[in-house]
Amino acid sequence: MKNTIPDTMQAVQVLSYGTDFDSLQIAEVPTPKPGRGQVLIKVTAAPINPSDLLFIRGQYGIKRPTPTIPGFEGAGIVVAAGPGPFGKRLIGKRVACPVPQDSDGSWAEYVICIAMQCIKLPSDISDEQGAMLLANPMTAIAILDEAKTRGHQAMIHTAAASALGRVLLHVSNQANYPVIHIVRREEQVNMLKAQGGKYILSSSEPDFQYQLKELAGRLKATIAFDAVSGEITGQLIDCMPTDSSVLIYGLLSSAPMPIDPHQLIFYKKQVEGFWLPNWIQQRGVVKTILTIRKAIKLVRAGFSSQIAEKVPLNAIYDAIAEYERNMTRGKVLLVP
Amino acid sequence: MKNTIPDTMQAVQVLSYGTDFDSLQIAEVPTPKPGRGQVLIKVTAAPINPSDLLFIRGQYGIKRPTPTIPGFEGAGIVVAAGPGPFGKRLIGKRVACPVPQDSDGSWAEYVICIAMQCIKLPSDISDEQGAMLLANPMTAIAILDEAKTRGHQAMIHTAAASALGRVLLHVSNQANYPVIHIVRREEQVNMLKAQGGKYILSSSEPDFQYQLKELAGRLKATIAFDAVSGEITGQLIDCMPTDSSVLIYGLLSSAPMPIDPHQLIFYKKQVEGFWLPNWIQQRGVVKTILTIRKAIKLVRAGFSSQIAEKVPLNAIYDAIAEYERNMTRGKVLLVP
Repeated sequence: MKNTIPDTMQAVQVLSYGTDFDSLQIAEVPTPKPGRGQVLIKVTAAPINPSDLLFIRGQYGIKRPTPTIPGFEGAGIVVAAGPGPFGKRLIGKRVACPVPQDSDGSWAEYVICIAMQCIKLPSDISDEQGAMLLANPMTAIAILDEAKTRGHQAMIHTAAASALGRVLLHVSNQANYPVIHIVRREEQVNMLKAQGGKYILSSSEPDFQYQLKELAGRLKATIAFDAVSGEITGQLIDCMPTDSSVLIYGLLSSAPMPIDPHQLIFYKKQVEGFWLPNWIQQRGVVKTILTIRKAIKLVRAGFSSQIAEKVPLNAIYDAIAEYERNMTRGKVLLVP
Repeated sequence: MKNTIPDTMQAVQVLSYGTDFDSLQIAEVPTPKPGRGQVLIKVTAAPINPSDLLFIRGQYGIKRPTPTIPGFEGAGIVVAAGPGPFGKRLIGKRVACPVPQDSDGSWAEYVICIAMQCIKLPSDISDEQGAMLLANPMTAIAILDEAKTRGHQAMIHTAAASALGRVLLHVSNQANYPVIHIVRREEQVNMLKAQGGKYILSSSEPDFQYQLKELAGRLKATIAFDAVSGEITGQLIDCMPTDSSVLIYGLLSSAPMPIDPHQLIFYKKQVEGFWLPNWIQQRGVVKTILTIRKAIKLVRAGFSSQIAEKVPLNAIYDAIAEYERNMTRGKVLLVP
């Protein structure tokens, strides 16, 4: 299999980090060349994830010199390899890949990835599903692993109707691990119930905090993974049992979290962060590979992330607007 | 030495927990009788600590059925002992004592304590200084121990002009351990400088956050002990280096802490609580006894807490008002 690699390619570029998306542009840029241990992937699918929007806004844990190309994961075909033992064998293969933090991202026709980090996609997993392995299935598996490794008997999850929330529901049900799913609207309660959720609370109910306190106490849910931040984080801290931890992993509200200091001092509660790159670094390569295999198994078993829309690169503005309007509808995929 | 123990005694009572102190009263109540392993102490001095005010307001980690007597520490003479090997030998001895969490406190003519927890006071330590061993010297030593045990190279301390802050300045200087002392007023900067403080910042300076960020980064101050809560906690989190922890141990503001979630997710920062009773429980008896010995050594070496005023039990209202007006002036001691 031989691809002709053009000298330039189309890509989405961030010109400067900012809170609106005016500084995004579609540009014709030089096609990157793989260095030692790297491969060049012709991108066939790359998702828009919440982390991408944070990155563009300059609120993510990674900032690169601008202009830079967003996109932290994707799938495609390996078309070239730099020197090193792993890359050559991947040429012509369909792979999914995380994008290295210090180089341009996957919202482009081509992207550079580290050969060792490429995940060969089995024939029964589409490029689209492969492109979404990282942010959702892997984070969900990592969250469940973290809760169990730390020895908690049950957990709380916010924004539970999100794509990630539904993967977490699936894997926690498989593992028979109790999760209190918190959603923001009544219809989402029914949706998660239909998907097998057992403990589902809507934060818009007037007695939400009372219910949460009762349920968290009964199930001994002493760890929470919070994708929202802001007010809800303070409510989690108030309602959880003594000796509880809230791990913030998402910024759907991005607002400061009003935490009651009494709860931390006298009831041994704490608030910390959870970020997949740190988790991967802490757990090491073996655990990461096992997690990826679990994620692939999950997709293969029929549990795939919902795709709301597939759009070309030059539809990026509308795609982001559409994604932000209704994140629970499913993923928006860029198909360069 | 023989004391005649009256059947009733004078005591300060909380009738119901509340945010003002209207429900405090001076009452004539039955003198308690020591049970197995307990001793009865004729109280000669008992301090008003911030924890007592929280307790009376119902905001402390301990709540007992009302009416109840406040006061978590004190000093006096052991006048009676219940059955058990330790108590008898203490009769007639001057001791300092923590008050058990589930029984009446030290703001009374007599108090029950656990014989094993009584600290015999050497002749060169006054009842007044002995009565204040726990809340200040011990907490300061515990804070320094916690920072070092966790492996941090330097720490930040807020409300550093408090009685506890000045003990911490002393012990950290002795241990040659760098502390960034944060105070609220310019004149407190000079006061701590005169007492040997090296790194002192006033939070009322316009460039406070800039200075804190620079200094914390330079000294690698990755742990903070915060006695204030509210706004300042959010500022600490913002200004501290990657991989930092803020431990709330005091509630001088009592306000919710607006924490930026980005800092927790991407920069591995966390907010937790620090409470002496939990620390003692975690570290065990041996460590606790060593800490008390250190505290006694400290007082013996001439480092004593400042006493602002000594008042009888029936002056409790004025004493609390006076203490709240200016906590940095020194401790107010009840002398029943």
